Amino acid sequence: MTEYGFIGLGIMGSAMAANLVKAGFGVTVWNRSADKCAPLVALGARQATSAKEVVAGCSITFAMLSDPAAAEAVCFAPDGVLEGLKAGKAYVDLSTVDEACSRRISDAVTERGGRFLEAPVSGSKKPAEDGTLIILAAGDRGLYDEVKAAFDCMGKASHFLGEVGQGARMKLLVNMVMGGMMAIFSEGLALGEKGGLDPGAILEVLSQGALANPMFALKGPNMLEENFSTHFPLKHMQKDLRLAIGLGDSLAQPLCSASAANETFKRARAMGLEDFDFSAVIQAIRQKRE
Amino acid sequence: MTEYGFIGLGIMGSAMAANLVKAGFGVTVWNRSADKCAPLVALGARQATSAKEVVAGCSITFAMLSDPAAAEAVCFAPDGVLEGLKAGKAYVDLSTVDEACSRRISDAVTERGGRFLEAPVSGSKKPAEDGTLIILAAGDRGLYDEVKAAFDCMGKASHFLGEVGQGARMKLLVNMVMGGMMAIFSEGLALGEKGGLDPGAILEVLSQGALANPMFALKGPNMLEENFSTHFPLKHMQKDLRLAIGLGDSLAQPLCSASAANETFKRARAMGLEDFDFSAVIQAIRQKRE
Amino acid sequence: MTEYGFIGLGIMGSAMAANLVKAGFGVTVWNRSADKCAPLVALGARQATSAKEVVAGCSITFAMLSDPAAAEAVCFAPDGVLEGLKAGKAYVDLSTVDEACSRRISDAVTERGGRFLEAPVSGSKKPAEDGTLIILAAGDRGLYDEVKAAFDCMGKASHFLGEVGQGARMKLLVNMVMGGMMAIFSEGLALGEKGGLDPGAILEVLSQGALANPMFALKGPNMLEENFSTHFPLKHMQKDLRLAIGLGDSLAQPLCSASAANETFKRARAMGLEDFDFSAVIQAIRQKRE
Amino acid sequence: MTEYGFIGLGIMGSAMAANLVKAGFGVTVWNRSADKCAPLVALGARQATSAKEVVAGCSITFAMLSDPAAAEAVCFAPDGVLEGLKAGKAYVDLSTVDEACSRRISDAVTERGGRFLEAPVSGSKKPAEDGTLIILAAGDRGLYDEVKAAFDCMGKASHFLGEVGQGARMKLLVNMVMGGMMAIFSEGLALGEKGGLDPGAILEVLSQGALANPMFALKGPNMLEENFSTHFPLKHMQKDLRLAIGLGDSLAQPLCSASAANETFKRARAMGLEDFDFSAVIQAIRQKRE
Repeated sequence: MTEYGFIGLGIMGSAMAANLVKAGFGVTVWNRSADKCAPLVALGARQATSAKEVVAGCSITFAMLSDPAAAEAVCFAPDGVLEGLKAGKAYVDLSTVDEACSRRISDAVTERGGRFLEAPVSGSKKPAEDGTLIILAAGDRGLYDEVKAAFDCMGKASHFLGEVGQGARMKLLVNMVMGGMMAIFSEGLALGEKGGLDPGAILEVLSQGALANPMFALKGPNMLEENFSTHFPLKHMQKDLRLAIGLGDSLAQPLCSASAANETFKRARAMGLEDFDFSAVIQAIRQKRE
Repeated sequence: MTEYGFIGLGIMGSAMAANLVKAGFGVTVWNRSADKCAPLVALGARQATSAKEVVAGCSITFAMLSDPAAAEAVCFAPDGVLEGLKAGKAYVDLSTVDEACSRRISDAVTERGGRFLEAPVSGSKKPAEDGTLIILAAGDRGLYDEVKAAFDCMGKASHFLGEVGQGARMKLLVNMVMGGMMAIFSEGLALGEKGGLDPGAILEVLSQGALANPMFALKGPNMLEENFSTHFPLKHMQKDLRLAIGLGDSLAQPLCSASAANETFKRARAMGLEDFDFSAVIQAIRQKRE
Repeated sequence: MTEYGFIGLGIMGSAMAANLVKAGFGVTVWNRSADKCAPLVALGARQATSAKEVVAGCSITFAMLSDPAAAEAVCFAPDGVLEGLKAGKAYVDLSTVDEACSRRISDAVTERGGRFLEAPVSGSKKPAEDGTLIILAAGDRGLYDEVKAAFDCMGKASHFLGEVGQGARMKLLVNMVMGGMMAIFSEGLALGEKGGLDPGAILEVLSQGALANPMFALKGPNMLEENFSTHFPLKHMQKDLRLAIGLGDSLAQPLCSASAANETFKRARAMGLEDFDFSAVIQAIRQKRE
Repeated sequence: MTEYGFIGLGIMGSAMAANLVKAGFGVTVWNRSADKCAPLVALGARQATSAKEVVAGCSITFAMLSDPAAAEAVCFAPDGVLEGLKAGKAYVDLSTVDEACSRRISDAVTERGGRFLEAPVSGSKKPAEDGTLIILAAGDRGLYDEVKAAFDCMGKASHFLGEVGQGARMKLLVNMVMGGMMAIFSEGLALGEKGGLDPGAILEVLSQGALANPMFALKGPNMLEENFSTHFPLKHMQKDLRLAIGLGDSLAQPLCSASAANETFKRARAMGLEDFDFSAVIQAIRQKRE
C-alpha cells in the first residue's frame, strides 16, 4: 500500500493523519513541535526529522498548516518540502490559503518536476475526526485521482475543481455564503427579541421549514445564551468576507449582501469581539456590548 | 366529532380542507366561486351558500384567503363571517395578513363575543397537500388548544406565539431570513459563475456542509438553468422584506443585511421580474435581463 | 395692497409672517396659543380669533404648521380653515407634510371652490428670519403666480413643481440627499479620527475643494466637539429617509446609498440619539455612546 | 531664487511646472517623452536628459507621475532619481500613490541622506492650470516650510499633515466622501426622474440650500444629458473607494455608506462604464445601459 507523508499535526492535521493510519495506509509524519508526533507514532506512523525527509521518503506528501505564512515557510525553508522534492514526487497542500500563496507553492513544486494539488477542506475539528470533511481540490487531475482513496478516509466528499486557485476560490465562496447567512440569521433573532417573540420559538420554526440547516441548529441556542466560545473566529470570517468581496471586485461582480454583512462583522470587531466565535456578530446587531 | 367550517378554497385552502375531511372531521365549506367546492363535497364535505351560513352552522370556522383585502372582505361583507358570529363561536384565520389587518378582524370578532386565532402558515402548495405546513398561531390560547388536533392534520408543527399580531410577525421574520439567504446564495452563485467555478459543484459543496438547507437544494438547480417558474412571487418577497424592515424601524432595530437584500429585490422588480419566482433575484445580481 | 392671512406662528411661521408685514403687506394672523400673535401685532398685523375668521377675511391665507396632524387639524376642525372658505378663496400650506396629507387638504379646499398650493420650505430658523428660504410649491399655477411677490419676501427662491404632491416629493428628495451626505461625511470624519488625521485639517481640506458646502461648514466643527444641539432632529431625518425609500419602493427605484444611510440613522436612534441634531449620526459610526 | 527640478510633464505636471516658471523660479524639467519639455523650455525652463540629472542639478526636485508604478519607476530605475540623490537633496512627490508606495520611496530617499515630502494634490486639470490645487503634504516638516512658496504658486492651499502616509490617507478620505456624495446625488436625481420631478428643478433647488457644492453644480447638468466625458475615470473612483474601505478594515472602522457606494460603482464597472467619468455611476442607479 502507498506510503504517504503528512506534515502539520495541529488539531486538524492530527485527526486527518490518524484517519489515514487507521485506514491502513503507511504514513510518515513530521511536525515543527515534535511532541505532536507521539500519538500518531503510537497508532503506527513513522516519524521523520524534517519536512525534507518526509518528502524525500514518500511519493506523495500531504500538508495541513495553519495559515499562508506557515504553508510557505514549510515549503520554502531550509530542510523544507522543496529540498526533498524531485521529479515524480507529489505534494498535496490541505491548508486554507489565498490563491496567490497557493500559486507560489504550486509554481515552486512544478518547476522542480513535482506534481501539486491544493485541497483546502470545509469543516472543523469534529468532521476532521469523523472523516466527514469536504475536500476542495484543484491542480493536477491525475494526482487527484491517485489520492482519492486517501481523501475518502479524511472526508465524506471531495471535489476536483480545475486549475490551482479554484479550490481556494470555492472555499472563499462557501465562507462568504456562511457569513451572509449568519448575518441575516442574527438580524432575524435580534428583530424577534425586540419584537417580543420567544427566541426559542424562532429557532424551532426555522428548524422546521425550507431554511433549516445545521449551522442555525448548532449556533442558534448558543447565540440566545450569548455563548460565543470559538469554533471559527469572527476575525477570520471577516477576513474571508473581505477577500471574497475583493475577488468580486477583481471580477466586477457587485456583492451588496456580502458587503453589508462584512460591515456588520467589522462593527463586531470594533466592539472587541474578534476572537470570539463568528456567531458573536449578533452582538453588533443587538448593539450589546460584552 | 367536531364540525369545522372552512372558508376559502384556493390552492392552499382546498388542500388543507381536504386534509381535515380525510382525517374524519365534519367540514362545511364555502368559496366565493362555488365550483371550487365540488371536489371537497366529493370527499364528503357539506357546502354552504355564504360565509355567514358557515359560521352560523359551525362552532369553529377556519378561513384561508389570498391576501388582507380578501380576508377583510370575507369577514366584514354582507353575508360575511361577522353576520354569522355570536358569543361562543370561534374564528381561525389562516391567511397571511399584516398585523393591523389581523387586529381589525380580531377586534370585530371579539366585540361580538367570539374567540379569534390568527394562524398564518409557512409552506406552499406541496406542504399544504402533504399536511406538512408550519402553523404560526396567536390570539386565544384556549382556542389554540381546542383546534390543535385540526392543526395536526394540516401541518407537521404548530406554534402558539402569544397575542394577536405575533403570528404575523413570526411569518414576516421567517420570510425576511428567507429573502436574505436567497440574496447571499445568489451572490455566491453569481461570483462562482464569474470566477470560473462549476456552478453544479457549488451547489454540491453547499449541500454537503453546515449550510445545507432544502431551499438551496430545491431552488439552486433551477436558478442555474434560469428557470424561475413561480412558487412564491418575487414581488411578495420584496413586500415582506419591506414590512420586516418597517417593523425594525418601529422597534429601532437596524437591519443592514435585510436592507441590502431588499434593495437587490427592488432592482429585480425594476428589471421586470416581479411576477417570477423570488429566486429570480439572481438575475439582478448577474445583471442579466430576460 | 393684498391682505394676506397667516395661520401658525411657531418659530418658522412668526419669522415668515413678520417678513410679510415688514414688506408692507397687510397681514391677519392667528395662532392656537394666542400669545404668539403679540409680536406680529406690534409690527402692524391684525389678529383674528380663529382660523375660520382669517380665511373669511382674506382672499389668500398662508399656513405654517408643525406637522401633518396639525396641518389637518387646523384645516378640518370646527372654526377651522374649511369653514371660512368659499369659492375664489385661496389657501397656501407651507407646512412640511406627506403627499397623502397634502392631497386630503387640497381635495377639501378645491371641493369648496377654493384654490390650493402646497409650499413646503427648505431651510430652518435663520433663513426664515433672513427671508432666504427655498419654497417648493405645487398645485394651482395661477395662485403661485399671484403669491410670487409674497414668496419673494419669505424666500430667496421659489419653485413651481407641478401638481399637488410634487412639492412634498421634492422636499423628501432634498432631505434624502442631505441624510446621505451627512452619513458619508460622518464616515470620512470617523475614518480620519481613527487614522490619525487632524480632524480640523479634514474640515479645512473639504472646505477648499469641489465638495465644499454650507452643511459641512456649519455642522463639521460641532461634530468634532460632539455638540449636537438640535436644529433638525435626528428622528425626523430618519423618518424622511424612510419615506424617501418608501417612495423609491413604490416607483421600483432601488436606493442602496439612502438605504445604508437609513440603517445608520436607525442605529443612532437605537443609541438614544433621536432628539439630538441629525449630525449626531456620527456617534453611531464612531460607536461612541453619550 | 531657488532652482527647482520638475519630473513628469503630463497634463497635471506641465501646468504645475509652468506656474513655477511663470512665478519666476528657475526650473529644470525632464519627462520620459522628451517632446513634452518644449512648451516649458519656451517659457524659460531648462531641460535635462534624465531624472538623475535633474536631481543632481537641483537642491529640490518635484515629481508628478501618473500612478504608483510610474512613481516607483522614475525613482528606482537606472538614471533615476536615486542615482542623482545625495545628502541634503530634497524630493517632493506630488503623485497620487498608496501609502505603501509612498513609504518605499521615502525610505529609499532618506536612506541616502535625502529629505522627502509626499504631496498628492486634490483637483484636476483646470485647478492645476489656475494654480488652485489643494496640496496634501506629509513627511519632512522643514522641507514643507521650504517649498511653501512653490506650493503657493501651484495651489490655493497646502496642508502639512504629519508623517509620510498621511497625505495619501487624506486624499483617499476626500475621494471616499466624493464617491459617497456622488452616489447619493445620483440616487436623488434618479428618484426625481422616476417620480416626475423636473430634473433641472432638482439641480436648482440643491444649488440654493445648505447642500450646494461645486461638484453638484459642475456634474449635474451633464448627468441629466448623459454626458460622461471623463475628468476622473469611474474605475479610479471605485479603486479609491476600495482602498478607503480597506483602510477602514485595517482600523476596524465600519463604513456602511462608503461600502454601499462602492458596490454601486462596481455595478457601473460591470456595465462597461469604467472609463467614463465617475458621474456615470448614475447609469447603474437608473439601470440604464449605454
